[in-house]
Amino acid sequence: MENDTALIIIDMINKMDFNGGEDLLENTKPMVENLQSFKKEMQKEGLPVIYVNDNFGLWQDNVSDLIDECRKGQGESVINQILPDEDDYFIIKPKHSGFFGTQLDILLNQLGVKNLILTGIAGDICVLFTANDAYMREYNLWVPEDCTASEKAEGNENALKIIERSLFTSTAPTTEERYQSIFED
Amino acid sequence: MENDTALIIIDMINKMDFNGGEDLLENTKPMVENLQSFKKEMQKEGLPVIYVNDNFGLWQDNVSDLIDECRKGQGESVINQILPDEDDYFIIKPKHSGFFGTQLDILLNQLGVKNLILTGIAGDICVLFTANDAYMREYNLWVPEDCTASEKAEGNENALKIIERSLFTSTAPTTEERYQSIFED
Amino acid sequence: MENDTALIIIDMINKMDFNGGEDLLENTKPMVENLQSFKKEMQKEGLPVIYVNDNFGLWQDNVSDLIDECRKGQGESVINQILPDEDDYFIIKPKHSGFFGTQLDILLNQLGVKNLILTGIAGDICVLFTANDAYMREYNLWVPEDCTASEKAEGNENALKIIERSLFTSTAPTTEERYQSIFED
Amino acid sequence: MENDTALIIIDMINKMDFNGGEDLLENTKPMVENLQSFKKEMQKEGLPVIYVNDNFGLWQDNVSDLIDECRKGQGESVINQILPDEDDYFIIKPKHSGFFGTQLDILLNQLGVKNLILTGIAGDICVLFTANDAYMREYNLWVPEDCTASEKAEGNENALKIIERSLFTSTAPTTEERYQSIFED
Repeated sequence: MENDTALIIIDMINKMDFNGGEDLLENTKPMVENLQSFKKEMQKEGLPVIYVNDNFGLWQDNVSDLIDECRKGQGESVINQILPDEDDYFIIKPKHSGFFGTQLDILLNQLGVKNLILTGIAGDICVLFTANDAYMREYNLWVPEDCTASEKAEGNENALKIIERSLFTSTAPTTEERYQSIFED
Repeated sequence: MENDTALIIIDMINKMDFNGGEDLLENTKPMVENLQSFKKEMQKEGLPVIYVNDNFGLWQDNVSDLIDECRKGQGESVINQILPDEDDYFIIKPKHSGFFGTQLDILLNQLGVKNLILTGIAGDICVLFTANDAYMREYNLWVPEDCTASEKAEGNENALKIIERSLFTSTAPTTEERYQSIFED
Repeated sequence: MENDTALIIIDMINKMDFNGGEDLLENTKPMVENLQSFKKEMQKEGLPVIYVNDNFGLWQDNVSDLIDECRKGQGESVINQILPDEDDYFIIKPKHSGFFGTQLDILLNQLGVKNLILTGIAGDICVLFTANDAYMREYNLWVPEDCTASEKAEGNENALKIIERSLFTSTAPTTEERYQSIFED
Repeated sequence: MENDTALIIIDMINKMDFNGGEDLLENTKPMVENLQSFKKEMQKEGLPVIYVNDNFGLWQDNVSDLIDECRKGQGESVINQILPDEDDYFIIKPKHSGFFGTQLDILLNQLGVKNLILTGIAGDICVLFTANDAYMREYNLWVPEDCTASEKAEGNENALKIIERSLFTSTAPTTEERYQSIFED
């Protein structure tokens, strides 16, 4: 079963240098620890981990430069907690959705992945719109609410409600659900 | 200015035969009159009108069959109020977003359209996700709140908030704003 | 096995009104009979038949209008020989490739199709570029040389060579091969 | 004028480790010097240079790793002659076309580029199919024949003929044409 589920980590390598970045950082700090331990657990189960991350204006498709650049911003401590491991995949995206202008769909197809666990920030932007793009491509989804955050708590809740209602997707936290049950049928 | 703005009408040719369709129909009925008169106004100004509509399981790309089929459902009265005119464009879409698996982007490029007024249903599904796909393609957007509806009023409001906050898009009603001001810079 | 193979018929509903259209028509006339009988054979085997056809400047997604319009051109006799049957799918495409700006990929996925038999015109334009788009999406392909034609015989041969060499795809004629063997592994 | 034209360099960072790689290498060696001096000339004129390059099975979007990996192959001398400069853009592609699963179109739009000079290898695979994808997206094209190569000379000529005839694109060599004239209307 491991083979057809992947953990997607969205925009956690983040400069947090935009308008509202401080609020997003505050809401991300308590979440990153959940994500960190959830990532470790998924790695132990042999699931592929795929970072899908904004290019922050760099167009050289160079992960190490991107991480270096982002570390200069106020999100440095978050970045250090959730750095990609050598075996993780890393897809650079130029826009909100992880599927738009990226090789994500091709990689997932090559890996035989059908089920996606979407995590990261911001819940009401890149996570939400990546979720819909995944839904339209007929992936099964789980967006655990304890592994996402947005600039405003209310915005995050709104997005999670839309994910539940419009995409028929569970937002149960990782403490309450296991991916084996979520994706079981 | 007319030449670079288009009115998009999403999923109004609708069977309303799915779970929750009755609620959506109730919320659409008061809205369709706003949309009807707004459409007439835009036509007078020479703006292209583009229907972007679910295929409802038909894969023959045949608008007249699609309309006939949808009229069999409970949405018939709504359909009759907002039927496409002969000069309107009609794009059939298979999924939530009007840009996914359709020729919408190509048609807009050919028409020289840069600004989109998005209307129709459901606000928290196809309108929201079409809006993001348009935003990622760098169209300027307006989603007038009096020309959209969703199954639940709360869902509609959530979606409009996300459109405002995550896509930096006005949701001012057509009674308060004119497209010339919205798209002026 | 029928369920995962489809017959694709490209641009046969054709005005033939462009520069070079007469030459294309001359080369299409002997081919359309091959295609006609091959289509019947595939229908008997239960394979889905999918027309993928240029919009010829119509943007209403309306097959019957498109056929009426094309019949006004010099390709009328060809069109009459290969008209879509009621059970055939019909996808309108705005550009060279059948996958660009269309719901083809989504329909194929829904039908569970993995193998495509590509036929139609022109061999060195829409058939060639649809073939590559199918190859990139990891469909298995067969482009039988007796069911395609181009404006110049030399152009058709060039395209078939590229299809063989760059896309690792058989161009064996329908008289020599059966789809069961082509797609057997 | 410089601002709306870009030089695209396809798959020159190449392991040449596949079947036929030696032939491709032989045909690329005489061409890389043309490309090298043409690149310098374009840089002097201020044109953006964009490498669009196969990922060779790496999915970490990391240019430096990709170059290191490719240098291990027999294409090393070619790579060393045409290494990207610091100001060059670098887009990693997973399939034949430079537009499929990449941010190329988004980058070009952001740079305001309308005209593409396509160079690199192989002429009858990635150059040909990138050319068609660019044509469908309505870029103006030039594919100078002295800056492309394929495994077989005949395959290269076939592809160039199709580029000329099906995409209405000049293949005049850089010694005979200037981009200002090619793209002038």
